[in-house]
Amino acid sequence: MENALNMDTVRLSEDKKSIVIVDQTLLPNECKYLSIRTAGEIWEAIYMLRVRGAPAIGVTGGFAYYLLADQLQTEDKAEFVKECIKNMEYINSSRPTAVNLSWALNRMHSLMLSRIEQLSIPEMKRLLLEESEAIRQEDIQICRSIGEHGFRLLEQLGKGVGIMTHCNAGSLATSKYGTALSPMYIALEHGWDGKKDMHVYCDETRPLLQGARLSAYEMQSAGIDTYVQCDNMASYTMKNKKVGIIFVGCDRVAANGDFANKIGTSGVAILARHYGIPFYVCAPSSTIDMTLHSGDEIRIEQRKPEEVTEMWYEKRMAPEGVGVVNPAFDVTDHSLVTGIITEKGIATAPFKEAFEKMGILPVTKYVDK
Amino acid sequence: MENALNMDTVRLSEDKKSIVIVDQTLLPNECKYLSIRTAGEIWEAIYMLRVRGAPAIGVTGGFAYYLLADQLQTEDKAEFVKECIKNMEYINSSRPTAVNLSWALNRMHSLMLSRIEQLSIPEMKRLLLEESEAIRQEDIQICRSIGEHGFRLLEQLGKGVGIMTHCNAGSLATSKYGTALSPMYIALEHGWDGKKDMHVYCDETRPLLQGARLSAYEMQSAGIDTYVQCDNMASYTMKNKKVGIIFVGCDRVAANGDFANKIGTSGVAILARHYGIPFYVCAPSSTIDMTLHSGDEIRIEQRKPEEVTEMWYEKRMAPEGVGVVNPAFDVTDHSLVTGIITEKGIATAPFKEAFEKMGILPVTKYVDK
Repeated sequence: MENALNMDTVRLSEDKKSIVIVDQTLLPNECKYLSIRTAGEIWEAIYMLRVRGAPAIGVTGGFAYYLLADQLQTEDKAEFVKECIKNMEYINSSRPTAVNLSWALNRMHSLMLSRIEQLSIPEMKRLLLEESEAIRQEDIQICRSIGEHGFRLLEQLGKGVGIMTHCNAGSLATSKYGTALSPMYIALEHGWDGKKDMHVYCDETRPLLQGARLSAYEMQSAGIDTYVQCDNMASYTMKNKKVGIIFVGCDRVAANGDFANKIGTSGVAILARHYGIPFYVCAPSSTIDMTLHSGDEIRIEQRKPEEVTEMWYEKRMAPEGVGVVNPAFDVTDHSLVTGIITEKGIATAPFKEAFEKMGILPVTKYVDK
Repeated sequence: MENALNMDTVRLSEDKKSIVIVDQTLLPNECKYLSIRTAGEIWEAIYMLRVRGAPAIGVTGGFAYYLLADQLQTEDKAEFVKECIKNMEYINSSRPTAVNLSWALNRMHSLMLSRIEQLSIPEMKRLLLEESEAIRQEDIQICRSIGEHGFRLLEQLGKGVGIMTHCNAGSLATSKYGTALSPMYIALEHGWDGKKDMHVYCDETRPLLQGARLSAYEMQSAGIDTYVQCDNMASYTMKNKKVGIIFVGCDRVAANGDFANKIGTSGVAILARHYGIPFYVCAPSSTIDMTLHSGDEIRIEQRKPEEVTEMWYEKRMAPEGVGVVNPAFDVTDHSLVTGIITEKGIATAPFKEAFEKMGILPVTKYVDK
């Protein structure tokens, strides 16, 4: 079992002509790297969750912007800009909820627009390559930093702490370390014993089982005492085991602290409040969308009913023709959040003021308006 | 698709020499009847959930007591009693949480003990046959009655109501009608339009998917507008759809109103409280165990990890060797319960007093002490 921390979730190939990702739909049974380079291949890899996790699809978005620009044959700058917009809009349509994808595309695009007058097209392509690599490097630093802030909370709770998480906001969801799982990786770096000093409970996270397949794999492969539970067992575990803290990732935070994350997160937050367990959201500051006043404005991706009734199963596990509810995300109210851990520190209520103090500003949006 | 209400979940064969059950592990893909007669076959059918649902395993327990007594060759009364105790204890060991199994076994056993002096062994066997058939007939009447009480709540909420349920406490979990699904069957009998007047949301109920496979099948086959959702979507649905009431079944109620039901029920109750949705438990009064002061005394069955990590899947969906939490039930605190709907009426807090007013008393226990 390879330590998940040593896998490269998403990177450019040596020749900088394609994106190499771990195909996460095959984990934990198979660890296979996939090379993608056309707009269609990249769109499919994001939509099908071969690469997934808000920060990782942000990094993929940056690489995609560069790669598709690099593939343009034109020497005409107006044509170049027009094609970049078309590619950006197409890639952004692959998943609507996480802000990181549009954030990275917007960052690449505004850099391009700001320099298009001065640079030749080959120079521009080099700049976009550097910028996309920079986004990946920053992601690693940001995740490390989130982990350090989260680890300080674990230290306060003391060794032997039980930790619950939902879905996968781990190394596989980012370039390295992850967000919600980063505190545990950092704890290992600080010498904590994975088998004794912490116990991690992973919700399996139906329908796509990212918790069972990915978070449990990550934590176990890193040598941490790890348990998988069905989502409906979270209440039992909070009541009967020693769960001291809950860490989840997130796909988009509104200015008031409401946030969207994997379906089921709002339920975990409500249970945590009931049992008096601190509930923390781990997110790069780029996940905070200051243009949205509240979570009501976050668009929630609805996915195919077959993910619930057929996928993973040998035969159909619900009657033919039945209705299916399959939102990919839900919105958790800010009143249920103990704190939002960013690379800049831990924000607490009132969140808008806390974000502003951290210098988090609304970003100009070319896509995702 | 056969209307689930017309299936016989559990009955004696024509010759009264075996129990005929619907093998519920094959639904919704296949509706197959299974004939069981030895102690081992009956134990396996209950343990493997071929027959399941607290009232249905109660009825099965009654039939099992009769059938295994009927198979005894002895003419010696002391020997007969001894063998009955042995069989009763063995059958009772198949599932520990639901009280109905031990309730039915205890009822059969105390009848036997009270008449063993007066009756010959053949006469006793006839009496036990009649008693076991009576338990089944009473179960049908009790479920109808629970449905009528529940339907009155639906009437108060008005047509168009959204109803959520967890696991399967339907016709398949009883002899007919079910407990938590009975109000909807009764609504149809009262002329409600299944497609317009009610909308039923079924939690799929991992790991064994009784909600997706059985409740959704029952409701859809009866012509009701039915939706399946992953367990972690309950919070989303409560927030975004018009859920007016929640009905769940239950396996054992303590005197203070705490109750054990399928894993995940306590989470649903906590969410319902958060969103202000009335939460009702539907249970025959035989499910109320007045010998227990609180839910802390209810023994929770722990099941095999493979049910979470392998069952239903083509390949393993969690890494090898990971820890697994797999309690079959959880206990919901009475403070989260709006009311407990029994055949005798709806009990509300304080529950102990309400149960006593309904004439519910502690039952003598020969097994399940």
